[in-house]
Amino acid sequence: MRATYLYGAGDVRVIAVPDPAVRQPTDALVRVVRACVCGSDLHPYHSMSATPEGVSMGHEFVGVVEEVGADVRTVSPGDFVIAPFAVSDGTCEFCRAGLQTSCLHGGFWNDPGLGTGGGQAEAVRVPLADGTLVPVAGVDAGTDEARLAGLLTLSDVYGTGWHAATRGGVTPGSTVTVIGDGAVGLLAVLSARQLGAERIVLMGRHRARTDLGREFGATDVVAERGDAGIAAVRDLTGGGSPIVLEAVGHMPAYEQAVGVVRPGGVISRVGVPQYEQAPVGFGSLFGRNVTLTGGPAPVRAYVERLLPAVLDGTVEPGKVFDLTVGLEETPKGYAAMDDRNALKVMIRP
Amino acid sequence: MRATYLYGAGDVRVIAVPDPAVRQPTDALVRVVRACVCGSDLHPYHSMSATPEGVSMGHEFVGVVEEVGADVRTVSPGDFVIAPFAVSDGTCEFCRAGLQTSCLHGGFWNDPGLGTGGGQAEAVRVPLADGTLVPVAGVDAGTDEARLAGLLTLSDVYGTGWHAATRGGVTPGSTVTVIGDGAVGLLAVLSARQLGAERIVLMGRHRARTDLGREFGATDVVAERGDAGIAAVRDLTGGGSPIVLEAVGHMPAYEQAVGVVRPGGVISRVGVPQYEQAPVGFGSLFGRNVTLTGGPAPVRAYVERLLPAVLDGTVEPGKVFDLTVGLEETPKGYAAMDDRNALKVMIRP
Repeated sequence: MRATYLYGAGDVRVIAVPDPAVRQPTDALVRVVRACVCGSDLHPYHSMSATPEGVSMGHEFVGVVEEVGADVRTVSPGDFVIAPFAVSDGTCEFCRAGLQTSCLHGGFWNDPGLGTGGGQAEAVRVPLADGTLVPVAGVDAGTDEARLAGLLTLSDVYGTGWHAATRGGVTPGSTVTVIGDGAVGLLAVLSARQLGAERIVLMGRHRARTDLGREFGATDVVAERGDAGIAAVRDLTGGGSPIVLEAVGHMPAYEQAVGVVRPGGVISRVGVPQYEQAPVGFGSLFGRNVTLTGGPAPVRAYVERLLPAVLDGTVEPGKVFDLTVGLEETPKGYAAMDDRNALKVMIRP
Repeated sequence: MRATYLYGAGDVRVIAVPDPAVRQPTDALVRVVRACVCGSDLHPYHSMSATPEGVSMGHEFVGVVEEVGADVRTVSPGDFVIAPFAVSDGTCEFCRAGLQTSCLHGGFWNDPGLGTGGGQAEAVRVPLADGTLVPVAGVDAGTDEARLAGLLTLSDVYGTGWHAATRGGVTPGSTVTVIGDGAVGLLAVLSARQLGAERIVLMGRHRARTDLGREFGATDVVAERGDAGIAAVRDLTGGGSPIVLEAVGHMPAYEQAVGVVRPGGVISRVGVPQYEQAPVGFGSLFGRNVTLTGGPAPVRAYVERLLPAVLDGTVEPGKVFDLTVGLEETPKGYAAMDDRNALKVMIRP
């Protein structure tokens, strides 16, 4: 089959690889219907050292089950499934607590320990299928594009935006600032709105994206960055935002979050940090009793909660996709996202 | 009057200063009955650059009101009062929310902006007396020592331990690890116990202190530090502690907290950080969805909750004091705490 590999910074190739197959009795083999490129895929796309073996790419997909191992109980061949970005057994302490990204037996796609390939491919071997996959009744590969797009966001970006908002403690009436106008930031806006936030300030400077943010529920947009952006948000919120959702992962976004948060407030991070050290002392978090929370979203925990409104069209998170490419054109999709010509790229194998 | 000043690392002096007086209509003048030395006083005691003017010291005291300004309503001459370690107006947005350490008009003792001296003195001018001071009925300067000691802990260390535990989310049945066997750590143990924690692991290696920690409710003591200490706690807690209370403030304590916390858990800091940067990225907090919270305790918010059990003797937080000195001997008190010959030193002016 054909699959997407990264061979170094900027070097994405679609190559022929052996067909995946069921290996363990708990595996499923899934034919990919739609996959996509994640903002976090751009981090290795920018900085990965060249490697002759390449790295299998993609951690977001929806598809149809082709085959299951003998122990699989919850999905069957023919089922349409959502594949969250983390593999999880569904039974360990952390899965039961809704923290599937810390599953004791799971891991992430392309993880050498799991021996599974990525989602930007024709098919994927899914370990721990009962825990990992979510079957969706009444949907098939021929379902209309808008609905497929919405379902695809449940594999990562929508659940990640939701994680930011719930970890941040958004409740009816909240004032929230969202940092970042990428797909996750925009879906953090949508999530905050669904949770009842009254005031949602979106920090972003790409007009088409912030317009979609307004459609999703942002009440204010701040295009300035740095000190000017901080001053604008502090002004709009009367001294700082009680809840800040950080959906970027770079240090300037962290600094912006620290700058706009209100004393006693919360910074909820879901952008994968591209730093290890950050200011947390008296002058940044401690002195003002600011809480720092967040992490990789256990999107598996959120699918059932978010699915009905996607299926009935009440919300349209799939609008974050503004470019669709065939599998062979995936390198162009990376380039389009990297150039910011595309917000988020869908792949149709 | 006589008051304690720090002139540089290790250089504590008790000197003659002008008598304080009511200056603003919202001031009170308080005669100090008992004060004490805080673990955080040891930070400048270790590292402050020499300064010819010196810095007024002390932020924990109980006393008797001698005089009040024309606008003071809630305390009167003769009242016995607890003075929390932060000055607060009691009326601003943050005070109403129980975050008096972020009061819009308040500050800390010895803050040049407030123009007030420290508590290690014969008397103190207290700004914003209605917001700051808590009168305690039925107590006077002749009250027995054990009760005075307990009341004195409400000015800082007990409320700070309580802040650690409540911010950490301790509830009945919780498993908690407390890092640090200083007065705040031991009172974090007591607080966690009062909030219903079932398992309380105390990390500390001073036997007399950890014995008091056991009396306050610690179920386990881990004397090892570094990797051995982390391994011991992870073993005791079956993979990490869901709640970690960090009551030290030095980087090794932070690293220990990161090492022992369970995925999805909380690190609640109340030790004043002696660092500004710390690890918060994928490998420390983010990857495991660990929350970092805490800050300067709004002890004013907790006095009413904690006072009854202190007055009726149900709890004896005053046991953290193991040395009492006269005001002139305050430099010896600093030295005793610094040498770890004393856990916490009370000053009787």
